[in-house]
Amino acid sequence: MKIQFDEKRLLAGVTGKANGVTTSEYEQALPKALTALASFREKSEKGLYGFPHLPFQKDMIDAIQQYVDSVPFEYDTVCLVGIGGSALGAWALDCGIRGPHPVQGAVTPEHPRLVILDNIDPSFTAAALASMDARKTLALVIAKSGATAETVSTFLIVRDWLEQALGAEASNRIAAVTTEGKYTEGKNKGKYKSPLAELAANEGYKTFGVPENVGGRFSVLSPVGLLPAALIGIDIVALTRGAAEMTHRSWLPDLKENVALRAALWQWLIWKKKPIQVAFPYSNHLWGTAFWFRQLWAESLGKVRQDGGKTENVGQTPVAALGATDQHSQVQLYIEGPNDKVFTFWKVEEFGAPDTIPARTFGLESVDYLVDQTLTKLIDAEQRATAAALSMNGRPHCTVTLDRLDEEHLGAFLQMMEFQTAFIGEMLDIDAFNQPGVEQGKLFTYGLMGRPGFERYKQEIEDLELKWAAAE
Amino acid sequence: MKIQFDEKRLLAGVTGKANGVTTSEYEQALPKALTALASFREKSEKGLYGFPHLPFQKDMIDAIQQYVDSVPFEYDTVCLVGIGGSALGAWALDCGIRGPHPVQGAVTPEHPRLVILDNIDPSFTAAALASMDARKTLALVIAKSGATAETVSTFLIVRDWLEQALGAEASNRIAAVTTEGKYTEGKNKGKYKSPLAELAANEGYKTFGVPENVGGRFSVLSPVGLLPAALIGIDIVALTRGAAEMTHRSWLPDLKENVALRAALWQWLIWKKKPIQVAFPYSNHLWGTAFWFRQLWAESLGKVRQDGGKTENVGQTPVAALGATDQHSQVQLYIEGPNDKVFTFWKVEEFGAPDTIPARTFGLESVDYLVDQTLTKLIDAEQRATAAALSMNGRPHCTVTLDRLDEEHLGAFLQMMEFQTAFIGEMLDIDAFNQPGVEQGKLFTYGLMGRPGFERYKQEIEDLELKWAAAE
Repeated sequence: MKIQFDEKRLLAGVTGKANGVTTSEYEQALPKALTALASFREKSEKGLYGFPHLPFQKDMIDAIQQYVDSVPFEYDTVCLVGIGGSALGAWALDCGIRGPHPVQGAVTPEHPRLVILDNIDPSFTAAALASMDARKTLALVIAKSGATAETVSTFLIVRDWLEQALGAEASNRIAAVTTEGKYTEGKNKGKYKSPLAELAANEGYKTFGVPENVGGRFSVLSPVGLLPAALIGIDIVALTRGAAEMTHRSWLPDLKENVALRAALWQWLIWKKKPIQVAFPYSNHLWGTAFWFRQLWAESLGKVRQDGGKTENVGQTPVAALGATDQHSQVQLYIEGPNDKVFTFWKVEEFGAPDTIPARTFGLESVDYLVDQTLTKLIDAEQRATAAALSMNGRPHCTVTLDRLDEEHLGAFLQMMEFQTAFIGEMLDIDAFNQPGVEQGKLFTYGLMGRPGFERYKQEIEDLELKWAAAE
Repeated sequence: MKIQFDEKRLLAGVTGKANGVTTSEYEQALPKALTALASFREKSEKGLYGFPHLPFQKDMIDAIQQYVDSVPFEYDTVCLVGIGGSALGAWALDCGIRGPHPVQGAVTPEHPRLVILDNIDPSFTAAALASMDARKTLALVIAKSGATAETVSTFLIVRDWLEQALGAEASNRIAAVTTEGKYTEGKNKGKYKSPLAELAANEGYKTFGVPENVGGRFSVLSPVGLLPAALIGIDIVALTRGAAEMTHRSWLPDLKENVALRAALWQWLIWKKKPIQVAFPYSNHLWGTAFWFRQLWAESLGKVRQDGGKTENVGQTPVAALGATDQHSQVQLYIEGPNDKVFTFWKVEEFGAPDTIPARTFGLESVDYLVDQTLTKLIDAEQRATAAALSMNGRPHCTVTLDRLDEEHLGAFLQMMEFQTAFIGEMLDIDAFNQPGVEQGKLFTYGLMGRPGFERYKQEIEDLELKWAAAE
């Protein structure tokens, strides 16, 4: 497993002082990175954060593999009902290893399709149901809290759809991933913390737990990501092996070895100068990972920081761009627009696919120079050309290079990104693991949907809407 | 056809002066909008820009429909080879009318699948070929210039793949969309302007022309978008009818009727305050359109402006976010992160799909309040809740609402976005129709790929890379 981080093009010597970082700034900041490492390690060892431990949980991995090996019916579709962190990890794995839709090929029991229902759009949901055969579908419902309105609603529809086709047998076609624990004290003592866990117990669904110290966007290597991955044939042992190796490297104080910490430090140094972070994979297989990263970066690092009575809005806006495709869509802006972005290229060294352009010529100058060359050479040339054009225009960028894209490398890469995020959270002095900013919206939604106890939020939003409608 | 624009929540009375626009600022700026309208109309009538004329070209629409009706073989897949503006319009139409992958359902000659090869990733290309049956594939190669390296390379592979399976018959399975004209003077007199047109003539492909005054990102209603759309069963007559109606409205000086101009003026007013534009559809079907828009906005409006000797980098970075899904991924940042964004919600009023959550209860408070309600109500509540949370935090947003998502509305919406972009280009005093910023990268790519005549760019990039590798 080989993953490299190259920071050269972030240097002020390339982009100029206003848009880059000097090596001496980097060296001065090193102690801050090492403090972040020590501080995060201490919290992690105390059990505050669980993601560094996930790749080592052999029992969890075995339990998933055992369930997958013993599914007593034939399925050609895994229907995942979940949203945000309960869906994006599975998409990253499916797209990363099996490739993007719509080119995954025929849906068969040997190559089951993963259908992710991560929205409540009625047309999308209806089309998804129409595209699946209930008798050949295994449904997963994934929600850590077990009460997410979107997930519960969609699941009730999917559950009913299975029941219509299969009757009582439907319960055997459903697995739930949620918080498994019960309250040990207070008025709810003995009750499940997650309503989904209670529903699963009542209905007899197979259940897998989400550790309480693992939040959605850090949960790809828990059953949240591993269960759907294993069910569609991804090697979760290799995936977690790569992640375990990256975990070992991420605790080392040597920043040559510890790519996650080195990347975090460089990203932190350029952070103040560039409010937009462009994740720029040159690989269609990494497109799902770019959307997974987009959540990780936005939700972890977009925070209100209270700094001695002063309130500050912290955050860098992540943007997903796909190379070479978005050279024909976004690069005009990246070169000529405001210099407000840092770019992180994600490169794959070996694609491992036939890639030769046929050797026949056509007597056309602008065609014939390409023949008998390879797509691998072309995509590499496109990336180098784009990177050079960015540097010439003072636009800072760095590169993460994966030797190839298999389970081991993808597992390591995802874990590297999680460590990087945690380290930057420490350096920014924010809590990278909460999401207080979405609470208000949830309360309004509950109010509008008539959830008992939330009536006043319906009143509140309706009053506000009236007031705003009269504004000038 | 009904499309509305609601600017209320951009108002300073909602978000505060620093983050909003006052009605008096709007009224003061009205003459600027009317000048932009007159100026763009004049250029358009002179023939400088072609997109406003496209919906009225009955001959073009008829020729496409006639070809589609007379394809002499059965196909279940349309394989589109193209990149950027040659691919994004087709994706917007496919996703908008037929729905997003992977839930489009079975691939049959009645419901052919559109596979868009818009990248040169070797794994992606190989997987795409493996997923298609050459005997049931109709290939489209789309490139206005006819020399785009990515498109030519991929096309040579697809062409060979068809030839391997079908021999000389392959040529009948290919259609090209490119500039059809020939040079009328100079040393190239009598030669095709587009090498792809020449190749098509030599090989006997059916060809459709791209008008020379229509650039890629404004070409969705030319054969670039209409041909693939018609081939997969989209009603291009209804599509262009909707676009024609929007075109009529877009020339009116009354900003109550002219939603494109009104939206342009409000977006222009908030532009200076907010460097990021979030396109926020609450509809999976509009996800392709969000990526089409992302090119339109970035490439048209991300420009170097020369202002009396002063060089200015103009542009607003477009971001695509999907509601309700991205409430669980991006909204934490949108609420608590830097107040550097304006949000444009895209709403669909009627989804026209079954959406009732089954009426059975489960004895669980956090589940039962949802039963017997509809997904339409829930997605609307989610959008209102998110919008309200944004307003409470001083984050400006506006809303475009489509009554429903059919060909007529989608055609109108795409045309509205193109007019809006052209109008803002006028108001910003930039050329919204060129893309000079991507030339340097193309030259470097040609150099690295050994295209004759471009040798010095290979030398140049290699020298630069060496220099940068030694930077500090």
